[in-house]
Amino acid sequence: MSTVLGDNRYGKAETRLVRVARDGDRHELRDLTVTTALAGDLAATYLTGDNSAVLPTDSQKNAVYAFAGRFGVDQPEELGLRLARHFVDGQPAVHRAQVSIVEHGWRRLGPHSFERAGAEARTTTVTCDADRAWVVSGLSELVLLNSTGSEFWGFPRDAYTTLPEAKDRIMATSVTARWRHAAQAGDWRASYEEARQALVDAFVETVPSLSLQQTLYAMGRRVLDERPELVEVRLCLPNRHHHLVDLAPFGLDNPNEVFVAADRPYGLIEGTVLREDAPPAGLAWW
Amino acid sequence: MSTVLGDNRYGKAETRLVRVARDGDRHELRDLTVTTALAGDLAATYLTGDNSAVLPTDSQKNAVYAFAGRFGVDQPEELGLRLARHFVDGQPAVHRAQVSIVEHGWRRLGPHSFERAGAEARTTTVTCDADRAWVVSGLSELVLLNSTGSEFWGFPRDAYTTLPEAKDRIMATSVTARWRHAAQAGDWRASYEEARQALVDAFVETVPSLSLQQTLYAMGRRVLDERPELVEVRLCLPNRHHHLVDLAPFGLDNPNEVFVAADRPYGLIEGTVLREDAPPAGLAWW
Amino acid sequence: MSTVLGDNRYGKAETRLVRVARDGDRHELRDLTVTTALAGDLAATYLTGDNSAVLPTDSQKNAVYAFAGRFGVDQPEELGLRLARHFVDGQPAVHRAQVSIVEHGWRRLGPHSFERAGAEARTTTVTCDADRAWVVSGLSELVLLNSTGSEFWGFPRDAYTTLPEAKDRIMATSVTARWRHAAQAGDWRASYEEARQALVDAFVETVPSLSLQQTLYAMGRRVLDERPELVEVRLCLPNRHHHLVDLAPFGLDNPNEVFVAADRPYGLIEGTVLREDAPPAGLAWW
Amino acid sequence: MSTVLGDNRYGKAETRLVRVARDGDRHELRDLTVTTALAGDLAATYLTGDNSAVLPTDSQKNAVYAFAGRFGVDQPEELGLRLARHFVDGQPAVHRAQVSIVEHGWRRLGPHSFERAGAEARTTTVTCDADRAWVVSGLSELVLLNSTGSEFWGFPRDAYTTLPEAKDRIMATSVTARWRHAAQAGDWRASYEEARQALVDAFVETVPSLSLQQTLYAMGRRVLDERPELVEVRLCLPNRHHHLVDLAPFGLDNPNEVFVAADRPYGLIEGTVLREDAPPAGLAWW
Repeated sequence: MSTVLGDNRYGKAETRLVRVARDGDRHELRDLTVTTALAGDLAATYLTGDNSAVLPTDSQKNAVYAFAGRFGVDQPEELGLRLARHFVDGQPAVHRAQVSIVEHGWRRLGPHSFERAGAEARTTTVTCDADRAWVVSGLSELVLLNSTGSEFWGFPRDAYTTLPEAKDRIMATSVTARWRHAAQAGDWRASYEEARQALVDAFVETVPSLSLQQTLYAMGRRVLDERPELVEVRLCLPNRHHHLVDLAPFGLDNPNEVFVAADRPYGLIEGTVLREDAPPAGLAWW
Repeated sequence: MSTVLGDNRYGKAETRLVRVARDGDRHELRDLTVTTALAGDLAATYLTGDNSAVLPTDSQKNAVYAFAGRFGVDQPEELGLRLARHFVDGQPAVHRAQVSIVEHGWRRLGPHSFERAGAEARTTTVTCDADRAWVVSGLSELVLLNSTGSEFWGFPRDAYTTLPEAKDRIMATSVTARWRHAAQAGDWRASYEEARQALVDAFVETVPSLSLQQTLYAMGRRVLDERPELVEVRLCLPNRHHHLVDLAPFGLDNPNEVFVAADRPYGLIEGTVLREDAPPAGLAWW
Repeated sequence: MSTVLGDNRYGKAETRLVRVARDGDRHELRDLTVTTALAGDLAATYLTGDNSAVLPTDSQKNAVYAFAGRFGVDQPEELGLRLARHFVDGQPAVHRAQVSIVEHGWRRLGPHSFERAGAEARTTTVTCDADRAWVVSGLSELVLLNSTGSEFWGFPRDAYTTLPEAKDRIMATSVTARWRHAAQAGDWRASYEEARQALVDAFVETVPSLSLQQTLYAMGRRVLDERPELVEVRLCLPNRHHHLVDLAPFGLDNPNEVFVAADRPYGLIEGTVLREDAPPAGLAWW
Repeated sequence: MSTVLGDNRYGKAETRLVRVARDGDRHELRDLTVTTALAGDLAATYLTGDNSAVLPTDSQKNAVYAFAGRFGVDQPEELGLRLARHFVDGQPAVHRAQVSIVEHGWRRLGPHSFERAGAEARTTTVTCDADRAWVVSGLSELVLLNSTGSEFWGFPRDAYTTLPEAKDRIMATSVTARWRHAAQAGDWRASYEEARQALVDAFVETVPSLSLQQTLYAMGRRVLDERPELVEVRLCLPNRHHHLVDLAPFGLDNPNEVFVAADRPYGLIEGTVLREDAPPAGLAWW
């Protein structure tokens, strides 16, 4: 029985780019990790090693640096759109390109001085074909915790259920969120900052929360309620369990004060919230 | 405009299980990390916090340990099938369950003594709905290197291409591979060991390799050629670049002997090889 | 020839403790990773397996949680002092105890809501013997960057030197710093916050910096100049290289704007700054 | 009060070197991560930014590659000795040099094909001053497990002790070991392989082991008993706890078969075993 080549793509992953804008007295600093992926009419290299359509991944990396030099880095969505369009328009065999950007934050300490802002990152994924582009923005490793106002009870109990009902527990998660834009242009900075704030606000204000699922849905809905340019939000929320320590053997109460922060295992809640009339996703999530 | 809940699932991630079989003089050791994910008629908890259909992730974890105790751990595919079926059959609201298992290898040192075998892992993902099951097996972090026999030339050159053609380079990659079984039962151990060997053999024997893509396709095809029970192979191959060091400033030749092993960026080649008549994938890749 | 037991110690590493203070309307949150190490008259367990003097590491972990419950967590130095004293005074065979605490920061979002502040951590190491205690405070993963004002020239050139002189480079580092207190009591919070600020200020203000070594010394000296309660500062500063990208092949200038942020290798500068009349370190750095 | 510069050193960390020996039909592959550190008459750069004695860390990196090209890589101890001597002899201001090498293992698959052997690494640290050299060899991340034959009982019980006595538990650890050579020359390969085997044998054969401390001492002593060229062994053994799962709620026995492999916290046992007449350590552990 013969075998065939199915879906495939290739590119350069994790190109590390720092861009300093030195136009005035105050420097601006942008710190990005950029990944490119191309697909199209590329079967020959798989089947015979004919590389005549395979733009080197090294050239893709060079384009990242050259575009950062030529156009600067303002919003990662713009850099992604330029690069993805460049690959599709520049290479006849390339029918799709995706550029994924992780932006690492820095806080200003002075006109030329900065401090890394932590593990949280702003993310962007732009996908182009010959005709149009899809833009997904998001964030990762936004770690949030409510020290009260979280409950979990009323669940079914099977033969393997030993969990007691919880009327007051810690809720903590590390948010990974991605949201799809309706259009190919926009005020990317404002959109990002306000979508991020909507996620945080919904997490904080959804009290009591009866499940992390309820919080997830509230977070996604809040983003869509507040940002008309967005049509879909995908959330991945690990439940970072905090177990109450039994201090009774030591003659002590533990009125929800002392917890073990557990590493593994962890609950994992994944869900999508979208507008009822959201346009088709096309290649947005490719 | 109203918002709706889209795709969603939840479960317990990374339950760490070590199972010792003590039946005879020689112990057997299995070391697994198990992740469960359930989906179905679960919108209520998202929309209102009604948890009456939400089997706790803690119960899912307990089931993992209880099943390991009751049935032992022989092949991870079997454990996955039992667990996934248990969740779908046991909870009316659960219409799909996926159990993903990473098995960490140990080498025997004595009847009761073992040594961890490295970062490479055997992986299994089983997905069930009410009617049937799909089994995907695979591996991760199998790191392979050919010190010669790899070339890369004849590629297109755009305005950002500076890469010289290579007639003899190091090819190194960390293989992540997953392969889909046609059936829901089989000799899982033999299938795994021989599919793994086919991947290794194809990597070693595809010389000259004119691109990592060519090697990828050869690896997938070899698995399908040798294992009739498999119908599709998905491969993810990072190109771990080894750059030749320029020793000329120090008065030395470097005839392909001294290399920098680079961390980032890296090429990334992803591709699928499948039988022309492969049955539909169904929920296999859910 | 006979062999003997040399230096040894044992304890419980990385106990994860989250403490919520719920006294009022606003909760306080402290998030610590605690490691204990004990030494003393413990040779018997090594030589014969006689455990009659070996307080279980599990009991050490329990004491961490019990002390957090009983006394709360205000300053990690205080928790460390209490715990270390407890182990030395409570176990006749234990002649020394060290408690190392890593505090993970959270920012307040609301009365009961918090956001992880990033990878930077506040660190404390307390060591006790029967008679006294030594306190070392510090921080880790404080990542700082100056986008100008750093130079490196005038260095010797050997047969392996190809580095050009730099008159304007990026200086970036991830600071690990530890500072020794003269006394066993103090205003730990103010001392920490102001020592941290002194490090940041010295990094920002040491311009031009002619070497990362010069910046290191300025950082340590600033801490000692501003904090009379401190007598010694140990600094470990990786030089996180940012290499200027050559954009000339693409017809572009690169006036110190586009950089590769390199992972490895990295320079590593380690140094101590101390008062001329610093008291002996005793067991502070054990 | 004036401040002074205390201990200090600087160098290049984690230079990644892959060396292929292509002399015959079969290639040999060595994969090293090399770190250099220099100290001496270097105060000027700290105090004034005068770099006239500061050999760039970039030159140190270049020397690593050049020496690998010129002399090949046979035993890492030899490469370390050459490099450390080079820095001390070549730079008048450098009075000490340390070269630390981590060797990553590969298994042969064919004449030009290799497979990474896992996380375990062979380590070497060579330190030179003007007059002599000290050589320390070792290994890291050798993960060992005995599924029976480990006990822990007879320990003291304080107010925080809840641990039951164990008569049959899993013992698992990730060995970090370093051993000091008496001399500056030797059959490094045989010494390494046999010292490693002695560690493994002692771990496997120390049954019953009444404490991880007892196993530690047995491991160190075995190395010294079998390898006359070695005089001191330092061991760091985390106790990777495997907790028995309580399956009683599910109507199941658990006769030492089903375990949770815990991540944190973990016990940590550190100890030194040395010959009674071991020569002074000098700078071996600098």
